[in-house]
Amino acid sequence: MALFMDVHRKVTGLTPGELEEIARSGLETARAKGVEVRNFWYNAKEGCIFCLCEASSKEAAIEAHRASGEPIPDEIFEVKEGSLH
Amino acid sequence: MALFMDVHRKVTGLTPGELEEIARSGLETARAKGVEVRNFWYNAKEGCIFCLCEASSKEAAIEAHRASGEPIPDEIFEVKEGSLH
Repeated sequence: MALFMDVHRKVTGLTPGELEEIARSGLETARAKGVEVRNFWYNAKEGCIFCLCEASSKEAAIEAHRASGEPIPDEIFEVKEGSLH
Repeated sequence: MALFMDVHRKVTGLTPGELEEIARSGLETARAKGVEVRNFWYNAKEGCIFCLCEASSKEAAIEAHRASGEPIPDEIFEVKEGSLH
């Protein structure tokens, strides 16, 4: 598995609660596609979301979004987690 | 303190090791400016870095980059950490 950070930019018009609910509702579907969401961060007012997940490929991470009815990320990068020590 | 995600896009030409070394070398200076880096993720080949930090303001997070001689982020968003449960 690899680590991916994806970025959504135009997810406006949702409250923080609605946005979190949508993200959480997709976790099971993502897991069923072999994608494990590790964390996500968002700014509901600016409509941006950063999602960190483990997946076998970029395509698998994108497919997990599609399968759970979530918007396809505007960007997605395979990333390495930096070490602070 | 608030949580910020900043994005660097054009940090190319560095090995993963060099990139991590630069990030780590800025931690003390950031802390001295009241900015606590919580984590960072990067793709050295594509030259992108995502940095999650706690700071009193966006300006403080940007100033911490400037003070440690790191490139100013291309984007920075105040974010909330989503809850997966």
